[in-house]
Amino acid sequence: MHVVEMVKPDGRALALYSRAPIQFAAAAPSPFADPLAANPHFRWHPLRGEWVAYAAFRQHRTFQPPPEYNPLAVTTDPAAPTELPEGDYEIAVFDNRFPSMSLDAHDAPASSVPTAPAAGHCEVVVFTQNPADALARLPLGRIELLLAVWGDRTVRAGRRGAIKYVLPFENRGVEVGVTLHHPHGQIYAYPFVPPVPATMLANERIYYARHGRALLVDMVQTELADPVRVLYHGLHAVAFVPACARYPYEVWVTPIAHVPDFAALSVEQRADLARALKTVLLKYEGLWQRPFPYLMSWYQAPTDGEAHPETQLHAQFSPPYRTRDRLKYLAGTELGAGMFAMDALPEDKAAELQAVVVAPELMA
Amino acid sequence: MHVVEMVKPDGRALALYSRAPIQFAAAAPSPFADPLAANPHFRWHPLRGEWVAYAAFRQHRTFQPPPEYNPLAVTTDPAAPTELPEGDYEIAVFDNRFPSMSLDAHDAPASSVPTAPAAGHCEVVVFTQNPADALARLPLGRIELLLAVWGDRTVRAGRRGAIKYVLPFENRGVEVGVTLHHPHGQIYAYPFVPPVPATMLANERIYYARHGRALLVDMVQTELADPVRVLYHGLHAVAFVPACARYPYEVWVTPIAHVPDFAALSVEQRADLARALKTVLLKYEGLWQRPFPYLMSWYQAPTDGEAHPETQLHAQFSPPYRTRDRLKYLAGTELGAGMFAMDALPEDKAAELQAVVVAPELMA
Repeated sequence: MHVVEMVKPDGRALALYSRAPIQFAAAAPSPFADPLAANPHFRWHPLRGEWVAYAAFRQHRTFQPPPEYNPLAVTTDPAAPTELPEGDYEIAVFDNRFPSMSLDAHDAPASSVPTAPAAGHCEVVVFTQNPADALARLPLGRIELLLAVWGDRTVRAGRRGAIKYVLPFENRGVEVGVTLHHPHGQIYAYPFVPPVPATMLANERIYYARHGRALLVDMVQTELADPVRVLYHGLHAVAFVPACARYPYEVWVTPIAHVPDFAALSVEQRADLARALKTVLLKYEGLWQRPFPYLMSWYQAPTDGEAHPETQLHAQFSPPYRTRDRLKYLAGTELGAGMFAMDALPEDKAAELQAVVVAPELMA
Repeated sequence: MHVVEMVKPDGRALALYSRAPIQFAAAAPSPFADPLAANPHFRWHPLRGEWVAYAAFRQHRTFQPPPEYNPLAVTTDPAAPTELPEGDYEIAVFDNRFPSMSLDAHDAPASSVPTAPAAGHCEVVVFTQNPADALARLPLGRIELLLAVWGDRTVRAGRRGAIKYVLPFENRGVEVGVTLHHPHGQIYAYPFVPPVPATMLANERIYYARHGRALLVDMVQTELADPVRVLYHGLHAVAFVPACARYPYEVWVTPIAHVPDFAALSVEQRADLARALKTVLLKYEGLWQRPFPYLMSWYQAPTDGEAHPETQLHAQFSPPYRTRDRLKYLAGTELGAGMFAMDALPEDKAAELQAVVVAPELMA
């Protein structure tokens, strides 16, 4: 993996990644001339016991721009700079211009609840220079590179002592509010372990203390023993609809052996994890023969410098559809109570996805 | 408060409520001839440490029926029965025909995770016989009655030893997936304290152990001391945008003194809580001069037979809009990490709602 690091005119960082040495890259552009002056802050939610981030300028962020302007495309006209330069790179990562958290945050305003600077870091990850592509259609080698890039970004973020947890994710589709259709994801680096991974970590710790093994590693063995919900089973990686799915087309993707984070993946594990991921994405695309919206979240160990034998690297997909033309809305019991109610059995949804045949020539 | 209890032809319970004695009610109808045979089950989510409910028949539930059929209207043609009979009642409560939980649930299927019958109870609460009305426009006396009905349903559910928590809520608007536009809400009665109220309860307990007072009662005093976010301040009740709002137009409504649940409200407290609630609803309606979608969740003490000096009855509104024409989508950081990111300050949103004048003649 090769990386070139640059600084944009407004002070934001840009990193270009490729499997081959990067021979050429123009100077880092920015659509914004004025320096970034983000100063988001956290407020403590006493009832929920969690931080909420406030970044008041975000109302004005780029929203469904007309087709002639794509800030994630490569800059071809210097008079209309985008976020990315020309060059022979494959993947680009840059600081979000409208971050919910910033390592430069300072002097949080006082409020009637405790406050703090929102000293995290928000990055945008562009998967390809082709605006019309999709993660599912990228070559396996590119997806392997993406897994390596997520690992590199995690390691770099973790080196900053302030960062305790790194979450790469992709929001895909207007149904989940995506404002830019160029294939991309985001990385949020938090100065604490946020509530969802914190809850999983607590349960993984209890399980590990009792059994001496990682909970999800054992769950995978149970799924493989009776593979009724399994979508992909390779030498090193697996994809399945979990028995306890909270979304109709929920899928988890994970290594089979214990791997706490992206950086701990072997080359073989990363290659098979890419195959598992691409298989799921192609099954999603094939299900209704149209782009399939989802939230893809990648969970890994906290970046706290400690060993995490209890925690397993894995992706969770949360697609918003419950049938071809009906969305699953999160409402009273899901958002109000936190108990998810499903009107479909995971086994039935797994069967639908199992029935989608992925043409071997697509798995390149 | 007067109540008449009935049984529908398919075995479901119906209760009619009114402030005056109910002089007349036709027999309880049902749109469904066959007996209810709901058998939902729970599956344990080991990573999150929570139950998920599965009710496979729910795919077929009533969905956006044509305007000529409204199952929540009063039955006028016996050949086309709805859920409600003619009669001089004000509010009706009946067992949900498509419940996520049922006290008759039995013999949960085995899975690769622990399972259990989803032995809870799901009710529908119809606020008015007028399909074109809205909770905001109901007379104060009707809203007081609704608060009393929620209390009565909570007490009745709590008498069943299996029920540990009762959550009344209203999903309003197509933006939150509402399938029937007749003004109504739901009540979910859980055989456990679900994750969201469990988290709040845990934080309330810690606060009470330290300070000897209810956390939310003290938060209200702080809000009233500097009422920059206060929308309503009566003798007994208050409505405000919390300093730690997770949704742009989030509002909390609560008594000022400590009140653990609906049943503990005095007549005066209930009347002022109704005024606070109606004020918020009318401000929402007035903000953009159009129906305002929201999820309204009412939290109270668990129905575990114990005293709850730490817990405060209150409503939380979670509206889906962040501006007049932009929805706040829950995506990567909210659903994946559990950290909410806000692009507006609660003080600014509170100012918008404070500026909406509620005509005194509407507050009847």
